[in-house]
Amino acid sequence: MVVCLGLFYTPYHPENIMTPKYPYDLRTGYPNTEILVPHEKLASIAQDLLLTDRATQYGGVLQGPLMPRERIAEWLTDHSTQTATPEQLVITAGAIAATDLVCRTVTEPGSIVVVEDPTFYYMINILKMSHIDVVGAPMTREGIDLDALAGLVEKYGDRLKLVYTIPSFHNPTGVNASPENRKKLVEMAQQHNFTVLEDTTYQWLYFDSPPPPLCRHYDEGSGHVVSVGSFSKTLMPSLRLGWIWAANEAHAQSFTKFKGDAVASTLNSGMVGEFIGRGLYESQLEYARNHYSERCGVLVEALQKEIPDYVEWDVPQGGYFVWMTLPEHIKAQDVLELSQVRGADFMPGRHAFVDGADDRYMRLCFTMMDDEKLQTGAKIIAESIEAAAAR
Amino acid sequence: MVVCLGLFYTPYHPENIMTPKYPYDLRTGYPNTEILVPHEKLASIAQDLLLTDRATQYGGVLQGPLMPRERIAEWLTDHSTQTATPEQLVITAGAIAATDLVCRTVTEPGSIVVVEDPTFYYMINILKMSHIDVVGAPMTREGIDLDALAGLVEKYGDRLKLVYTIPSFHNPTGVNASPENRKKLVEMAQQHNFTVLEDTTYQWLYFDSPPPPLCRHYDEGSGHVVSVGSFSKTLMPSLRLGWIWAANEAHAQSFTKFKGDAVASTLNSGMVGEFIGRGLYESQLEYARNHYSERCGVLVEALQKEIPDYVEWDVPQGGYFVWMTLPEHIKAQDVLELSQVRGADFMPGRHAFVDGADDRYMRLCFTMMDDEKLQTGAKIIAESIEAAAAR
Repeated sequence: MVVCLGLFYTPYHPENIMTPKYPYDLRTGYPNTEILVPHEKLASIAQDLLLTDRATQYGGVLQGPLMPRERIAEWLTDHSTQTATPEQLVITAGAIAATDLVCRTVTEPGSIVVVEDPTFYYMINILKMSHIDVVGAPMTREGIDLDALAGLVEKYGDRLKLVYTIPSFHNPTGVNASPENRKKLVEMAQQHNFTVLEDTTYQWLYFDSPPPPLCRHYDEGSGHVVSVGSFSKTLMPSLRLGWIWAANEAHAQSFTKFKGDAVASTLNSGMVGEFIGRGLYESQLEYARNHYSERCGVLVEALQKEIPDYVEWDVPQGGYFVWMTLPEHIKAQDVLELSQVRGADFMPGRHAFVDGADDRYMRLCFTMMDDEKLQTGAKIIAESIEAAAAR
Repeated sequence: MVVCLGLFYTPYHPENIMTPKYPYDLRTGYPNTEILVPHEKLASIAQDLLLTDRATQYGGVLQGPLMPRERIAEWLTDHSTQTATPEQLVITAGAIAATDLVCRTVTEPGSIVVVEDPTFYYMINILKMSHIDVVGAPMTREGIDLDALAGLVEKYGDRLKLVYTIPSFHNPTGVNASPENRKKLVEMAQQHNFTVLEDTTYQWLYFDSPPPPLCRHYDEGSGHVVSVGSFSKTLMPSLRLGWIWAANEAHAQSFTKFKGDAVASTLNSGMVGEFIGRGLYESQLEYARNHYSERCGVLVEALQKEIPDYVEWDVPQGGYFVWMTLPEHIKAQDVLELSQVRGADFMPGRHAFVDGADDRYMRLCFTMMDDEKLQTGAKIIAESIEAAAAR
């Protein structure tokens, strides 16, 4: 089996400049780095760190160097309902690496891991690296389907070790799990002794008002909830930097048991720590939110004008994606082919389901393209839906 | 189980400046970054990449961006007996992550992995993350004990999937496996269908003349040999950057199947690619070789003056370490305790064995300390040996 992000993602310029395969790229879930990244500030920080021989050495401690853990902990404390400490944190090579690490730690070969169905498609690959079986629980407008999850708990018992959830601005559906849903999920974890791994990648990328508190808000530090997060969509993807926020120090250290890279890049950790420490991350996040909100607004306006009424979709309140459900007789694959001929691309939603799904779903990402490309892309996709309907 | 490099490595300043626990630190196997790292060149490259929005995006391709793979391939072609292509390479978050990746890919839970006994102690942890059993084959002055390995092949049959070897300037013994030993090891791998994973971290850190060719020299691209390498000891540890050099593209892509971080930092990949591309790596390596050779010379001269004749050790021809064997009646732990009281530290060699060993071995690293500290450290350790002998 050859796993390649290129299956869904577009190829890159040798020097890593984005060159989308289709001019109207509503598929790739990447930020527009030209706009998002604070190039000069990061360049200045990298230079300072390197010229003073800071952030040049190995880490020494598998959780990551103390300074960036202190800065991330302070930031999390300011932007959640709980107090974070550096002892609770493990710096990782991104949220994907963090998820791999948590899954490796809390499962054993043959364990069951439950994901929302649909979920972030690439995480299914990542979870399966631990020789476990991935099972889907349907996604509802309130979050993961708790009745279905209860059925899986009943069916698999102790084999069920982990539930991977994206509670806020879910990829791909955009759903925010309700506070009740989060609370009950955590209670189920405590009762049946599994771990809730919440991916908070989009938690702080809201447009108007913040989503409900993290799942860990509903836990009393029992160690049944682990949060993972990322700086890829708020600061710079190429840092490959994220974190695990565990219940306490012992819990955090348990995750270093499977840290196959030993320690995340201490240069990149230092850059993030310094960026937060200089008080720059707050305005950067504000900037990112405004930027994404504006991109979303342009796409939504175009979609509202162009997309036929029989297509179901909600206006996103944050995150990266618009999720669309076609009527049963229209195939997303037909829409895709018709769109691509005219230069527009999106992700067929069936790829985001554990065992595939009806070919009725479409994921549109609004973060990469400028106004004109979002508008033309929306128009091409809308006309392709109508053409597919007429087939 | 809490795994912490701090078990053997010393703690760090919050901003990641090295602050050894003992003033005469001959334990820590780190480079002296103040001397090794080309701070200004790397700072300039980081600045160029960031200000021009290169190396800011995700990678897109799990093997890593093409540009750095091209540069690394060119460099490997110039510094080995074989032609490397970018298709054969996977950029990884260091040689440790590369080893984890190879082990995850070629083993399944319950497999047997053979290591040289002693070996790089931390790799034992890394290999075990794949739910496999690690078995040691003794180390000889010619390389891994091939007769012992044949016995393990006989005993474990198909369960034996992987042999992890450090053929050049072996950690901790400093041995260079002979060409015959390398050749026969590869033939055994071909015959019995296991993978030889050769860690080439020290391959290019020779003092006078290069070691024998890589193990892969003796393979015809059969896919039974995989090389992993690192920029940590030649350029900068905090990059956490290394590579897998596989037999061909399909072989390389097979290792992305368990790439739990998806892709290594594209910023750090870009920095390395640019560093090589600007023609700077050749003189950097030359500089590193001279630097390490000089450190080694200072320690060796002090040891030759101070260490009692009944201690067995060889003068290193490259790498990082002096390996010492004490007479049976002297315990390395006693020497260590007596040394530490006076501020000198080294690694007891028993930690580098799979199932522990007689407490007769000592690993001394010469890369961190200045002349005076190497000399005083050697003197303290020598006097501690004599004091332990008199106990």
